[in-house]
Amino acid sequence: MIIVLRPDATQQQIDHIIEKVQKLGLKVHISKGTERTIIGVIGPEDLLQVTPLEVFPGVEKVMPVLAPYKLVSREFKPENSVINVGKGVKIGSREIVIMAGPCAVENKDLLFEIASAVKKAGAQVLRGGAFKPRTSPYSFQGIGEEGLKWLKEVGETLQLVTVSEVMDPRDVDLVARYVDILQIGARNMQNFSLLKEVGATQKPVLLKRGLSSTIKELLMSAEYILSAGNFNVLLCERGIRTFEDFSRNTLDITAVPAVKQLSHLPIIVDPSHAAGKWGLVAALARAGVAAGCDGLMIEVHSKPEEAFSDGAQSLVPENFSSLMQELRRIAEAVDRTIL
Amino acid sequence: MIIVLRPDATQQQIDHIIEKVQKLGLKVHISKGTERTIIGVIGPEDLLQVTPLEVFPGVEKVMPVLAPYKLVSREFKPENSVINVGKGVKIGSREIVIMAGPCAVENKDLLFEIASAVKKAGAQVLRGGAFKPRTSPYSFQGIGEEGLKWLKEVGETLQLVTVSEVMDPRDVDLVARYVDILQIGARNMQNFSLLKEVGATQKPVLLKRGLSSTIKELLMSAEYILSAGNFNVLLCERGIRTFEDFSRNTLDITAVPAVKQLSHLPIIVDPSHAAGKWGLVAALARAGVAAGCDGLMIEVHSKPEEAFSDGAQSLVPENFSSLMQELRRIAEAVDRTIL
Amino acid sequence: MIIVLRPDATQQQIDHIIEKVQKLGLKVHISKGTERTIIGVIGPEDLLQVTPLEVFPGVEKVMPVLAPYKLVSREFKPENSVINVGKGVKIGSREIVIMAGPCAVENKDLLFEIASAVKKAGAQVLRGGAFKPRTSPYSFQGIGEEGLKWLKEVGETLQLVTVSEVMDPRDVDLVARYVDILQIGARNMQNFSLLKEVGATQKPVLLKRGLSSTIKELLMSAEYILSAGNFNVLLCERGIRTFEDFSRNTLDITAVPAVKQLSHLPIIVDPSHAAGKWGLVAALARAGVAAGCDGLMIEVHSKPEEAFSDGAQSLVPENFSSLMQELRRIAEAVDRTIL
Amino acid sequence: MIIVLRPDATQQQIDHIIEKVQKLGLKVHISKGTERTIIGVIGPEDLLQVTPLEVFPGVEKVMPVLAPYKLVSREFKPENSVINVGKGVKIGSREIVIMAGPCAVENKDLLFEIASAVKKAGAQVLRGGAFKPRTSPYSFQGIGEEGLKWLKEVGETLQLVTVSEVMDPRDVDLVARYVDILQIGARNMQNFSLLKEVGATQKPVLLKRGLSSTIKELLMSAEYILSAGNFNVLLCERGIRTFEDFSRNTLDITAVPAVKQLSHLPIIVDPSHAAGKWGLVAALARAGVAAGCDGLMIEVHSKPEEAFSDGAQSLVPENFSSLMQELRRIAEAVDRTIL
Repeated sequence: MIIVLRPDATQQQIDHIIEKVQKLGLKVHISKGTERTIIGVIGPEDLLQVTPLEVFPGVEKVMPVLAPYKLVSREFKPENSVINVGKGVKIGSREIVIMAGPCAVENKDLLFEIASAVKKAGAQVLRGGAFKPRTSPYSFQGIGEEGLKWLKEVGETLQLVTVSEVMDPRDVDLVARYVDILQIGARNMQNFSLLKEVGATQKPVLLKRGLSSTIKELLMSAEYILSAGNFNVLLCERGIRTFEDFSRNTLDITAVPAVKQLSHLPIIVDPSHAAGKWGLVAALARAGVAAGCDGLMIEVHSKPEEAFSDGAQSLVPENFSSLMQELRRIAEAVDRTIL
Repeated sequence: MIIVLRPDATQQQIDHIIEKVQKLGLKVHISKGTERTIIGVIGPEDLLQVTPLEVFPGVEKVMPVLAPYKLVSREFKPENSVINVGKGVKIGSREIVIMAGPCAVENKDLLFEIASAVKKAGAQVLRGGAFKPRTSPYSFQGIGEEGLKWLKEVGETLQLVTVSEVMDPRDVDLVARYVDILQIGARNMQNFSLLKEVGATQKPVLLKRGLSSTIKELLMSAEYILSAGNFNVLLCERGIRTFEDFSRNTLDITAVPAVKQLSHLPIIVDPSHAAGKWGLVAALARAGVAAGCDGLMIEVHSKPEEAFSDGAQSLVPENFSSLMQELRRIAEAVDRTIL
Repeated sequence: MIIVLRPDATQQQIDHIIEKVQKLGLKVHISKGTERTIIGVIGPEDLLQVTPLEVFPGVEKVMPVLAPYKLVSREFKPENSVINVGKGVKIGSREIVIMAGPCAVENKDLLFEIASAVKKAGAQVLRGGAFKPRTSPYSFQGIGEEGLKWLKEVGETLQLVTVSEVMDPRDVDLVARYVDILQIGARNMQNFSLLKEVGATQKPVLLKRGLSSTIKELLMSAEYILSAGNFNVLLCERGIRTFEDFSRNTLDITAVPAVKQLSHLPIIVDPSHAAGKWGLVAALARAGVAAGCDGLMIEVHSKPEEAFSDGAQSLVPENFSSLMQELRRIAEAVDRTIL
Repeated sequence: MIIVLRPDATQQQIDHIIEKVQKLGLKVHISKGTERTIIGVIGPEDLLQVTPLEVFPGVEKVMPVLAPYKLVSREFKPENSVINVGKGVKIGSREIVIMAGPCAVENKDLLFEIASAVKKAGAQVLRGGAFKPRTSPYSFQGIGEEGLKWLKEVGETLQLVTVSEVMDPRDVDLVARYVDILQIGARNMQNFSLLKEVGATQKPVLLKRGLSSTIKELLMSAEYILSAGNFNVLLCERGIRTFEDFSRNTLDITAVPAVKQLSHLPIIVDPSHAAGKWGLVAALARAGVAAGCDGLMIEVHSKPEEAFSDGAQSLVPENFSSLMQELRRIAEAVDRTIL
């Protein structure tokens, strides 16, 4: 940590800061420049997290030097993590895993129809929301446990890994009983009670980036899960909120190589929620594979006109199937594979 | 709702849309322009929320005409809501109510010392976090129930209304037993499980705007609470996330008159979290009063150097006391009062 | 254009609006809903651009229906535009064109060295700034006309198309004498004097998207150039400003398919300025090709340690050359080619 | 400047960096921490601006310590600058100066009518655009020199200082002949050719903050003008671009105290362009005064229904006059005055 002093900082103020830092068991390194003095703090920066050095008299600003996350960092674990999500599927290796399915689980027959179609096209994971976070209390909120049962049944019948969102810490056990991967939605990325609860299980967790969260904050939220004991975390870029309104959100494609540099965890791209319009999904999915993602999560619905939620961003099975063909070619061009 | 058709929409496509809309019990109004046809939908737009008209063939875009919130809207209730928060304090009337106190409750003596100081300066509500949402799992997470007890005791001794954050739906009853106002933090503004849970109580709720939430989304989250039966909601503007990094967040001062136009609910301004630096707090607090807010929430700490969290944005009691003097003059200039 | 009236709009107010609209030669279409009346305006919306309907009594909001750009729109010209940029190079067809070179032109020998390297690797266009827009007046501002001369000479020697930025309307003729493509930088995307000036030439123009400009605004700025008579415009996505600070800007990869939907003009991706760090450039370049761009603009410098500007985001020739290999494979996977 | 090295930086890499820094005439200060080594650079950081230290092998990141602006900084000039804008009006002292008038100059009689009204209400500066930057080439572009003549004539008749925008470096002399204050619009804040050109005059310059510019960048653009020899600069906060779309832009009210901390230059607030809706203007204007601004720029139009541009955000003279009454009371409450 670097403490930059004000040009008018007095020696007494400087001594006061040094004393405080040393009391915490850290060493200081003083550097007197032409315009101002700088204090370097040597030792674990954590010790300073409860001491607001910014408020000490004479301090102009405090600049952390080290990243605040540890277990998720590439420095902690240099090789890529490969997460076993069940039914023989592993995410984070050479094979790029495709997750597909409807936004919300609506009825069992429809789910089976869509699941069969995406399975046939090469998807290995079936997505489908039973609990839906909706901006409006008057929108469809999901059908709950019944939907999870269908998901489990369809997943077992078709040998598809299943993923579904959990929104409430009280529901973690329930959802974990039915699905293979627990999804934490973008709006709950900093729902710390929920993060701790999924961290207490050993279920794989798909952690979606918040609409206005930085990559660093995404990693910090993953750190909550890892530090609670669950290392089976998949990160997911699904678009951030910006001023641009042609697409629903702005897919931050840079997050893919950024996460790869900073962390050992796999990174999934969700082009559907980023785009908000099915006509943009294919291009974003291709970009995700080319940028180096480990998986894609794509909304597919066989009757988007009748979807209870987000029909506008769903591909129909035929489009999904053609997209899969395109993606395989790009995967090959970057020395990866898609089933 | 307005449905704008593509220039190349066929009559068959138009008929298909009309049929769908009419099946839902709504009327349509066709308007053939020089360049494209527009369909106006007459009747409650809610009925269309589960039908994604954007995906119908021939549709270019769909534009909602009505606001999606009802109970929180000024149209629903033209006069200002005045919320009784207990101990004789009401928010939303001519008197502007000041909430002050430490970011986190740390120990009882310190809390009492700060509470006495802010009470003396004119604050009517004591704030203090017992459960703290922190970006890092390694930061101080609050001291929990013990802190709530101190808050209750100090509040009763000094006759101060108390407010504290609840982060977990499982803790709503617990927190409600000890404090007068339940606070929903910015990161939980769209934690819908939590919103429903506080909506099921009759406790006043201070709902903070999310870092990247629009004013409309803030109102929709309040709608969750009102529609669950609890009309005692205070909205709070506490800064949004933008590209500017001099302040921690960007106080959206426009939210004050905007909320006043759109809703009957009181609006509180939190200059401390918006600024992130105590040196900016006073100017933002003054701006809040001048813009028409119904209350302010300000962090005050008597020993910011020792604060466990957010010391950098806390005023010391002397600065808070001078600020209160300034605020009273501005309140008077806008025909309001401060105790 | 749709005019939504307030619930309390009087018949007199409605008549006043209708009268105004009809006076402009437009037709109206009244639709009385259950909650409010809506007026559809039929005819060219342009006629209403000087009449601020929002201020008419009784009006709640005004929603435009048609896009405000014409000449750049895909509706105006359904097939892709192919821009001839000279020396036999065309942009916008099946071949993806790579532009590469140093951020700034520094000396002739170095320029020649870099140009030879990028030519060898497959670049067809040589980039290099002679006039540099710099945030600080104390930063290197470019070496001016001398640099343009070197660019011309090197371009002719190596048979490379050249592109360089013009920042001042007074310099358009000067820069046009030396280079093949005039670049309008992100900071000047809404410098309308400059747009009109390059619109008055027939030189190809590379128009970079502003840091905080929407895709629609980018198209409107292009419309300035086309409406002045110059249809040889290349659009360029180079990252937008968001809250994320790991990369210098956030590459809006969605802009690629969005521009392809909305316009017939070619779209170039500049991964170097978006990333701000050379270690992220390759992934973004690959994503650009996979998403469907018509060209890439990449900074290459043989001695980034000595670059006068933006060395941190420059690839060295060896990295550029490997990247070109990767890009060719991805281009092939999306049925395009790279030289 | 602080150079943070990678954990795996070799001694050879460290020596290479030290050698480079020392060659530039700067001193280094090495600090070996438990996890990584840090190099502090002592001496004027400017010398490093042309050397991209980020690209040196072994470097993880480079953090500047000093602000990049000098002449505009409060350290350079601790007391407030008071700018003499002519006709006896000074900006930056205890008196808050109100600028008002139409968005665009449309005809002389109307201008005189509006000018008389704002003068009577207490405005000291008349605003009015003769050259208008418009997103669309098909929108009204201003009436040019004729408008400047009217502005001059009306200003002289009513003894009002005048301000008008200059968009093109070639027009600086022309505009300077007619008006007292040259305005640089938000879209041109980083039009460096234009900044240099107004810097070469001694005319007061009103420099508007760009829609996506940080406060630091605003100060850097002002530095261009001061470093060219013109110290008569007024800064203007007019709203930044964010995701919020209820208002046209988000007024960054924090910019007022921030500029006051960082710089000696006066800061003006433009609530009209920030709001985009006249119904929000009064609250923002009051907030500006309470936050400590030195002036306000407000759009006033006596016939907003007929305004050629931005009628929706213009106050009618009666509203402006009542607002002035409110502002005087707030000014008094913060120990300032308004005429």
